[in-house]
Amino acid sequence: MSIFEQARELAVIRSSAEVIGWDQETYLPAAAADHRAAQLAWLAARAHKLATSEAWKNALETAQATDSGDDPQRTANLRELRREFKRATQLPVELVARESSASSLAKHAWADARQRADFAAFAPHLESLLDIAREKADLWGYTGEPYDALLEGYERGTSTAAVAALFDALRPELRDIAAAAVAKSSARNPALPPGPYPIAAQQQLNARIAAAIGFDFQAGRIDTTTHPFCTTLGPRDVRLTTRYDENDFTSSLFGVLHEAGHGLYEQGLPGADFGLPSGSAVSLGIHESQSRLWENHVGRSRAFWHCWYPVARECFPQLAACPLDDFLAYLWRAAFSPVRVEADEATYDLHILLRFGLERRMLNGSLAVADVPAAWNEGFRDLFGFTPENDRLGCLQDIHWAMGGLGYFATYTLGNINAAQLCAAARKDPAITTAMDQADYAPLLNWLRTSIHAHGATLDPADLMQQATGSKPATQAYLAHLKARYL
Amino acid sequence: MSIFEQARELAVIRSSAEVIGWDQETYLPAAAADHRAAQLAWLAARAHKLATSEAWKNALETAQATDSGDDPQRTANLRELRREFKRATQLPVELVARESSASSLAKHAWADARQRADFAAFAPHLESLLDIAREKADLWGYTGEPYDALLEGYERGTSTAAVAALFDALRPELRDIAAAAVAKSSARNPALPPGPYPIAAQQQLNARIAAAIGFDFQAGRIDTTTHPFCTTLGPRDVRLTTRYDENDFTSSLFGVLHEAGHGLYEQGLPGADFGLPSGSAVSLGIHESQSRLWENHVGRSRAFWHCWYPVARECFPQLAACPLDDFLAYLWRAAFSPVRVEADEATYDLHILLRFGLERRMLNGSLAVADVPAAWNEGFRDLFGFTPENDRLGCLQDIHWAMGGLGYFATYTLGNINAAQLCAAARKDPAITTAMDQADYAPLLNWLRTSIHAHGATLDPADLMQQATGSKPATQAYLAHLKARYL
Repeated sequence: MSIFEQARELAVIRSSAEVIGWDQETYLPAAAADHRAAQLAWLAARAHKLATSEAWKNALETAQATDSGDDPQRTANLRELRREFKRATQLPVELVARESSASSLAKHAWADARQRADFAAFAPHLESLLDIAREKADLWGYTGEPYDALLEGYERGTSTAAVAALFDALRPELRDIAAAAVAKSSARNPALPPGPYPIAAQQQLNARIAAAIGFDFQAGRIDTTTHPFCTTLGPRDVRLTTRYDENDFTSSLFGVLHEAGHGLYEQGLPGADFGLPSGSAVSLGIHESQSRLWENHVGRSRAFWHCWYPVARECFPQLAACPLDDFLAYLWRAAFSPVRVEADEATYDLHILLRFGLERRMLNGSLAVADVPAAWNEGFRDLFGFTPENDRLGCLQDIHWAMGGLGYFATYTLGNINAAQLCAAARKDPAITTAMDQADYAPLLNWLRTSIHAHGATLDPADLMQQATGSKPATQAYLAHLKARYL
Repeated sequence: MSIFEQARELAVIRSSAEVIGWDQETYLPAAAADHRAAQLAWLAARAHKLATSEAWKNALETAQATDSGDDPQRTANLRELRREFKRATQLPVELVARESSASSLAKHAWADARQRADFAAFAPHLESLLDIAREKADLWGYTGEPYDALLEGYERGTSTAAVAALFDALRPELRDIAAAAVAKSSARNPALPPGPYPIAAQQQLNARIAAAIGFDFQAGRIDTTTHPFCTTLGPRDVRLTTRYDENDFTSSLFGVLHEAGHGLYEQGLPGADFGLPSGSAVSLGIHESQSRLWENHVGRSRAFWHCWYPVARECFPQLAACPLDDFLAYLWRAAFSPVRVEADEATYDLHILLRFGLERRMLNGSLAVADVPAAWNEGFRDLFGFTPENDRLGCLQDIHWAMGGLGYFATYTLGNINAAQLCAAARKDPAITTAMDQADYAPLLNWLRTSIHAHGATLDPADLMQQATGSKPATQAYLAHLKARYL
């Protein structure tokens, strides 16, 4: 089999695991979990075996040796397949198994430590996982610092220093915008009319809006889970999920808008290249740019609600008591929360800046694990002006470190930066702006299809941004957006 | 790996395909079908490769050579694994591929021919599939006739002659019972009060009843499909489906009772032996006995509705206008239909007797394909007293032959025979009868768990029936049941 055929087979295996994983989150009976884990483990082992096999290596080398360079997409696919193969085979099986086992223990210890706000109980696990992360970084190699090697897995071609420079440029202004937004919102204290907002009506409105922004229900669906997500089960099978709050219909709707942003990207990738880099999403920072664009730049805009608020009022008669301006103030409410997942658009990135700085220092050894709680609280106070009550609401709040997920929090803020930059670039076309002002998003989606989706993973994310917007990721558009909305 | 470990791995692969197949029937977006087929094909190829591998054969031989015989269950498992391996490896890959391709063409031709009631367009495909079926039968081997070798795959240890003897015993009485039931029902012309019977209320009633007869929702669920089915995605993950008719709540409910009967069997198999014969269902005739027992002997009984009709009336207020006796007459209504899938309890088996006789003659060469329509119509008239209007409502109605599914229609009637015999045997225990008369089915389920479910596939179906009821499958109990209900 050629390397391209093998890559497609790998996609069949991995997407089979996605089906099984999706069912696990949506419909799995309580008692069925053990066997489900066995199914996922079997498929993961198959995928790993294929992607690191001699047959794969040989096919890759054969394709490489015979590549004429006449087809730039083929060349790009080979380059990216080579990069993935190298990364996959640089880690010995023993290390991967050790990480998996350490992470499994750490997740249990974290859940327990978080419950009791007892960082010391989690510390030895974090220590082990940091050792393993540094070991991985050493094996993968880096030029600047260990964080580079981890970041490369989520946002290839980007350096820690480049991210730090962006974040340093954001920090002082973000802090001021957030503080002003929180003060303003607190003075107005916006609220939604009381529920219930029946779930069936929420589902109808969500589906109507998702279809209106271009999500193709012939090639996707929306189901219900505790934590919203988007997963791709095949080239024309994109599953979104959301959760429902009967007291606030915007909770499920913004879940859908965010996940539909991811879903539109997945539906826009070249389906014929499913499993090849040219048919795959390029990075987390670009993926998150799509979700944030539809969630925040479209879904929280006045033009969007000028069109959709009358529809929402038909679905939920109690909204008659709430003028559009009050509703928008509710969507733009801002408050400082110690907890990232409860943060709003105006304060979210402060959480990411904090974690990025801490992870970077932990990885390069300049911050000892024992000092993490103090460093967290100090950094938090500097950004938010207060200290979390305890470590449960502080450095123990996220599961990511316990999962060995070091190096990717940064991509959330990269996503916000990219979203604003893409939206601003698209709006340079007056036809797109005019349509968006009338809540017609077909021209915007078309522009994203051409500028981002169609390229798959053939370009590095920063180069893709350069080609689409005229510059690499930069903070201007994002700060301008936040200032316009919150100041 | 030992043969038992390999068998468990095979179960992981096959059950993964079941997850993907279940999703295909329940929630798959319309455009996603192609990739889904690729996922199922990959898993099927993996399963086939493992189950026919040298490693499997060697592990089987090693286990066999070292079997002391001290553990009868281990010995039974080895015997059945050997039987399956032999059957799987007796067919050359070329033949399996040829059948798959012929069946794929035949299904398209059948759908088209059926639409146009044009048997001649389907005939050459049926001819090919019969050739292939005979080729398979020759490779598997048989002592009596080709049908034996096919039947063995669905109902091991049973001979065509034994089935024919049962069916011959049934025929004259069945014909009389059916005619009398149809006449009686036609005189009374029972009907349900007009709908709508809201789907949400149907779902609640169905779930309540399924739970009451013992279906474990911690280890299973009910979803919606065009054709109801039951599938097992893991040792504690049994999925039922049904379909809804807003004008008749009994349609979805009896779908659920039937499929829950299959599901109770699957949930009652020894979970620790999942993937081994001792943890697997033994045959279609036993599986169908479980679904028919819960559907017809429990769900269509007066005692059942004495308890549940008041609940149904709470769900559907229009039932207040329908006395219990009228409702039961509706459940026991009988009518002659040319179409098997529309047949009721009193007339269903006549359809099976017809097909069994025709298939048997087609396979042994005494009925030419060109003569099938005439033979169908003649056989149909003999059983039902009239001739189908055309071949669409006659010999073209079922997809089974086009799928290469020759040899298993018989198991539907075997299921009915077994259901009645099991129910009669269980009721010999006065505690079970007393409980059933109060719509308490826990003792009945417990008896089925012990007598049938716990044995998995370690005994041949007829021996399992002998052990559970004191005799091999026989027609007395079934005829007594039909007479009591319909005469």
